[in-house]
Amino acid sequence: MKIAVLGVGLIGGSVGLGARQRLEAEVTGHSRNPATVERAIELGALDRGAGSVAEACEGAELVFCAGPVAALPGQAREALAASGPETVVTDVGSTKGELVGELGNDERFIGGHPLAGAETAGVENARADLFDGARWYLTPTEQSSGVHYDRLQRTITGLGARPQAIQADVHDRLMATVSHLPHVLANVLAGQAAAELTRDSERMPEVGPSFRDTTRVAGSNPSIWGDIFLTNRESVAEAIDSAVGRLQEAADLIRTGDRDALAAWHAAAGADRRRLLEADGAAEALRELRVVVSNRPGTVAELALALGEAGVNIEDMALHPAPDMKSGAISLWVSGEEQAERAVALVRKLGHTVTALDDGG
Amino acid sequence: MKIAVLGVGLIGGSVGLGARQRLEAEVTGHSRNPATVERAIELGALDRGAGSVAEACEGAELVFCAGPVAALPGQAREALAASGPETVVTDVGSTKGELVGELGNDERFIGGHPLAGAETAGVENARADLFDGARWYLTPTEQSSGVHYDRLQRTITGLGARPQAIQADVHDRLMATVSHLPHVLANVLAGQAAAELTRDSERMPEVGPSFRDTTRVAGSNPSIWGDIFLTNRESVAEAIDSAVGRLQEAADLIRTGDRDALAAWHAAAGADRRRLLEADGAAEALRELRVVVSNRPGTVAELALALGEAGVNIEDMALHPAPDMKSGAISLWVSGEEQAERAVALVRKLGHTVTALDDGG
Repeated sequence: MKIAVLGVGLIGGSVGLGARQRLEAEVTGHSRNPATVERAIELGALDRGAGSVAEACEGAELVFCAGPVAALPGQAREALAASGPETVVTDVGSTKGELVGELGNDERFIGGHPLAGAETAGVENARADLFDGARWYLTPTEQSSGVHYDRLQRTITGLGARPQAIQADVHDRLMATVSHLPHVLANVLAGQAAAELTRDSERMPEVGPSFRDTTRVAGSNPSIWGDIFLTNRESVAEAIDSAVGRLQEAADLIRTGDRDALAAWHAAAGADRRRLLEADGAAEALRELRVVVSNRPGTVAELALALGEAGVNIEDMALHPAPDMKSGAISLWVSGEEQAERAVALVRKLGHTVTALDDGG
Repeated sequence: MKIAVLGVGLIGGSVGLGARQRLEAEVTGHSRNPATVERAIELGALDRGAGSVAEACEGAELVFCAGPVAALPGQAREALAASGPETVVTDVGSTKGELVGELGNDERFIGGHPLAGAETAGVENARADLFDGARWYLTPTEQSSGVHYDRLQRTITGLGARPQAIQADVHDRLMATVSHLPHVLANVLAGQAAAELTRDSERMPEVGPSFRDTTRVAGSNPSIWGDIFLTNRESVAEAIDSAVGRLQEAADLIRTGDRDALAAWHAAAGADRRRLLEADGAAEALRELRVVVSNRPGTVAELALALGEAGVNIEDMALHPAPDMKSGAISLWVSGEEQAERAVALVRKLGHTVTALDDGG
């Protein structure tokens, strides 16, 4: 398979590495900086470099536009102009609406967005396994060719990722809430806490784990975040408006001093978070297995190792020692019916009594 | 020294353990649940139990009120009533204004708040070293006795913590911003993201690291957070109002699409966060030392080991190799004049050329 990569940074480089190592693809790359292409070839991310977008796209079956977000429309347009009817052109940018709005009526263009690699940048950090297990959103339109879509999603899967089709505007609203808004909240909190310095004293406030966690992404990766806020500005602003409404309700609730209502609000947030984290990567409901064990050292490790070896992921675990401390039960949570059945069979084979608990509906 | 601990959970239990192990104190405890006292004695957190607050306070030089936040006023009042003029009565609750407002005119009562132990609960998790290096705020008033304050702050230091006096209302505003508001933001974000489920599809949104970090404390530790929001409600609501204002400004900024302004806002947030994290635990400005080195293997390790051995903490480090790669410079950042002077002396003794850079102000 012949692949072109336009823009050879972390994502472009990782696509090249993955495609060459896992798909036996021939990968040609182009970058505005020729040194980047040379380095990418050295690192094994490309077979060869091209002097222009058109040259890179020659004979390519699949073109990944992986340049800076602001450059993507131009890059993708050039690629489409230089490609034949069979070529799939896609991108890897964080926002989809503007790009798909401009190019989506070309049946060969299908927007994409891999949820991976936000922590580093540059081809030096490219890895063949960067996308393993990662959600890779694809944003086909009514105009997108089915054959083209199929080639793209197969390739995405071949790179180790989990493709999922989503409408471009739905994608951008989703990203605004679960990715862009957290960055805005982090920025606001950092700024507000720093302003405490001059408000009451010379003292810089001590900050604990909750502050560190909530502000971790404040000001992060400045080279990309300005553009992300920009290209998704309507959805991000709406997500902020929604958060503002919720915060105003929270302030009102706190002012009432209604202890039970506050506790319920707080508990609901915890439940919401758990639901969202369960959903992440595991579309199926967690099943709880209860294993009866004697209190022999190594039992937990034995179970965890055996299940892991069999590809059953333990999503959570809880130990329930009996009052006499001589025996007890272990709860294991796995994802979905199939994993639950395999886990039960394995655990029985190890000689334990195990029940899959009723999920109650 | 005789200490009384009223309420023997994580904090009360850890005070007991620390005081018995490090201060050779005799610790008497009281809890509404006698089983808790028994367990605390087993764990070494108490010498003995008492059947009532009054009995626990008999002969005590220092009384720690460590019950549930809502119970503190009553607990502290009982302790003051049962104690003599020499006794110091303090508490460990997360909010200070209400309590100090009620009891601060008694010269023996000095409010306190250790920034430690929020992740777990219960005497089972108590540790003698729980407070090592932790900020412990103390909220004396004009009425507080100097002698009493001194005994309290010495004991706090003896427990491994770093006491700091702060006005009660300033403390509550500070905690509202750097601790309570992050919890509110986490709750709001979790709720908003979960609401995406029903908005556009059946699909639960995938959530990445920024979401996980920003919502980590959503719904956490429900048994205490309702009361914290409640007892600090005015300050928390004001902190929320302030955040709302900043979010509305951020939304306006994002809607303008002004790339440079967005980038500047984003960068400022990053700088604010770094300043706050530098300040945490290091009240003094960082001083940069520039060490000229030949490019001999082991130089960095030698410097780091020698400084560490001498108790000088390297807050940050940067290597600056010269273009010929045969020599270069190392920048070391240490906290404050005193550490900088000691570091300079040490590094010179190791035979290097070193300059303490001008801090420019």
